[in-house]
Amino acid sequence: MLQKRLTQQISHLLETSDKVELRRLLKHMHDADFAAAIEDFPAQLILQLLLLLSLPAQCHLFVYLDPQKQSDVASSMSRNDLAALFSSMEQAARADLYNQLDTQQRQTLMPGLAQAERDDIRKLASYPEKTAGALMTSGYATLRSNWTVSKSLIKLRLEAPDKETIYQTYVIDDQRRLLGTLSLRELILASPDSLIENIMLPEVVSVQVTDDQEKIPQIISYYDVIAVPVLDDESKLVGIVTYDDAMDAAEEEATEDAQKSASVAALDSPMSKISLWELYSKRIGWLILLVFGALLSGAGLAFFEETIAANIALVFFMPLLVGAGGNAGSQAAALMVRSLATGDVEYKDWTKVLRKDALVAMALGLSMGVTVYFLGLLRGGPEIALIVALSMFFVVFIGSIIGLCLPFILSKLNLDPATASGPLVTTIVDASGVLIYFGFATLLLQL
Amino acid sequence: MLQKRLTQQISHLLETSDKVELRRLLKHMHDADFAAAIEDFPAQLILQLLLLLSLPAQCHLFVYLDPQKQSDVASSMSRNDLAALFSSMEQAARADLYNQLDTQQRQTLMPGLAQAERDDIRKLASYPEKTAGALMTSGYATLRSNWTVSKSLIKLRLEAPDKETIYQTYVIDDQRRLLGTLSLRELILASPDSLIENIMLPEVVSVQVTDDQEKIPQIISYYDVIAVPVLDDESKLVGIVTYDDAMDAAEEEATEDAQKSASVAALDSPMSKISLWELYSKRIGWLILLVFGALLSGAGLAFFEETIAANIALVFFMPLLVGAGGNAGSQAAALMVRSLATGDVEYKDWTKVLRKDALVAMALGLSMGVTVYFLGLLRGGPEIALIVALSMFFVVFIGSIIGLCLPFILSKLNLDPATASGPLVTTIVDASGVLIYFGFATLLLQL
Repeated sequence: MLQKRLTQQISHLLETSDKVELRRLLKHMHDADFAAAIEDFPAQLILQLLLLLSLPAQCHLFVYLDPQKQSDVASSMSRNDLAALFSSMEQAARADLYNQLDTQQRQTLMPGLAQAERDDIRKLASYPEKTAGALMTSGYATLRSNWTVSKSLIKLRLEAPDKETIYQTYVIDDQRRLLGTLSLRELILASPDSLIENIMLPEVVSVQVTDDQEKIPQIISYYDVIAVPVLDDESKLVGIVTYDDAMDAAEEEATEDAQKSASVAALDSPMSKISLWELYSKRIGWLILLVFGALLSGAGLAFFEETIAANIALVFFMPLLVGAGGNAGSQAAALMVRSLATGDVEYKDWTKVLRKDALVAMALGLSMGVTVYFLGLLRGGPEIALIVALSMFFVVFIGSIIGLCLPFILSKLNLDPATASGPLVTTIVDASGVLIYFGFATLLLQL
Repeated sequence: MLQKRLTQQISHLLETSDKVELRRLLKHMHDADFAAAIEDFPAQLILQLLLLLSLPAQCHLFVYLDPQKQSDVASSMSRNDLAALFSSMEQAARADLYNQLDTQQRQTLMPGLAQAERDDIRKLASYPEKTAGALMTSGYATLRSNWTVSKSLIKLRLEAPDKETIYQTYVIDDQRRLLGTLSLRELILASPDSLIENIMLPEVVSVQVTDDQEKIPQIISYYDVIAVPVLDDESKLVGIVTYDDAMDAAEEEATEDAQKSASVAALDSPMSKISLWELYSKRIGWLILLVFGALLSGAGLAFFEETIAANIALVFFMPLLVGAGGNAGSQAAALMVRSLATGDVEYKDWTKVLRKDALVAMALGLSMGVTVYFLGLLRGGPEIALIVALSMFFVVFIGSIIGLCLPFILSKLNLDPATASGPLVTTIVDASGVLIYFGFATLLLQL
């Protein structure tokens, strides 16, 4: 409601080209909210609005638009306006926008920029998605070890408007090798004459440009730092990833894992914006692949045709058994996938985890076996009850173990453990369940 | 490996009580790593180590120990040592520790603290878990609107050692009502004579003490702020939640959702530390509950006994059909649960999402129906193929719709949408699948 009123208000101000009132409005609210209010405007109108604002205000607003909108607006801009906007943008945002543009747009844009800026954009835009390099910004502040605190503070004040953060600074040598780090708080508290080398923290936790972005939020959260420095393969400082970009990465990773855990290929945009075709194509692949897994269960059933034909009652218990195995497997897989993702459990802990969880799997199997024994007695007599209870124990036990091991196996094969999804585990456990259940039944009923 | 060597080194220094070397070691590494290295020491040994350190160093190290270890170490401390440590701890950490202690420990501790500190602890410890109140710290810096920038900077420098952050400051009136906010960067860049009221940002995004912690990382990430202020029911500022605590909360929430999405009750500790009994008890409840859901499928099968007995081949296709429906349902549920959790989709979007996704569900059903038609032809003849294909279409379509709606229904009932897990959806869809499949079969085979 509020947003709708705001959108109308902005529309009105735009129609009357009321610059003063627009700027006042923007000053009194957060850019993110303002950007959300104009999100659905046509690109041409957003452009018109941006051009009413000062360049820094343009930037602040522009970076909150969603990437597709940014690229649409950029396409309608004149070369000069775009170059001006680009030059004032923070580097990481700039590289992201650059990646959104098509070849022609890039060619239009580049001549308007300074050489250093062109190099910077090309460099940042060259790192593969979801790596530290793609996430980092080059807008960090550096100090030298032989500077005094007061000299450093003066420099920081001068640089503050252009830097993504000045709250954490990095001490480098002539080759840009990282010597240490200092927070602004420590600088403010230190005596003005102290030398940086005497007060800096010499051991800095850093990541490599090629590292997976997944690591970064873990590091920031574990060490309670505001940013993590990024080094290239020559150990030179090339950027930092700040906590806010790390938080976005963490959310992206958790969303991707949640999607994979349900056998959906990772979506490229949020559900609210995704196209029907993309939503379909990200789901159908796994659904069809899993059909072939389910054929195994069907083949298992066909193999036991005689047993089934002679004892139709066995079929009634099948959903119960096979379902319980799949559920236990999904539980174990989800627990493992998440523990591997947060770094709580690592690949090397496999055997330890297996030993511990095998006991739990056994206890679960026993409890479930006892539960269905009574259900079996009630609905099929003592013979069926025994078959169902025994099968339940093994199906739940083996289902749990499969769910537990699959993420480790995928991780060993350098695949994402999150692919060990509920549906995949369920399909595998279903086939094992059919074999165990009807195997037992054939054996025990023949005795 | 590295950690093991470090652990041995620390053990050795402890045995020889080498204070100087211990302090040197601690200075050269991050407290989090040091704490991880001593995590498995007995409480008595950790206490001995802490007492070799200065009070601030004790604090820094202590807060990185896990909560159980903190409480063990606290139990072995003398009343005076504990009170001293407590007084130097940051307030949020203090309240967490207080919550870990038993009644007797609390009674031992309280008399050693100043009245203001006791009140502060009791207040912070009184907010329910997983609310903004429980997550917040009272270690924030406040300014007054009629102060100048230079006066404010002097005050911040004085307070810096005691505050959790000085990078974001809050402007309050005599009643502690929040008037605005300023970042340290803005303060540094402003002219020293400016009045705070003229440069502060008057619209501050805040949360209520009773708000769910889930909201906070979303706000921090959306507005790119370093902390969110927390207000009580009289709109007075009572604390702030900083980005690092928000990141921990986000990870906790994502883990909880991942667990719920596999029908595991939320675990109280990470997998690596959880007891066998807890792991068992968090899984068995849902497993047994779902047994009763699966009984529905069994009853459905019993109902169609005649059809099955006459056409055993129908059974072979059951895992395929029922599995595919469950998989499609799990996909839809996981996508919705995650979208609701990140705020990308809200409850009010239900009908819009349903309209859009019903088309996708139909397309998925069609594709799957066509796929299995050929499998049916190959393995059972044209009649079976038709039954299987038709059933597949409906099972996948209805499975998707159930998976899509369940999170919204749970959310409407004020339950956590994440409970709409794969196993729950699978169990419900299984039963519908059995009815649809054998219903069609009975109908078509009679014709």
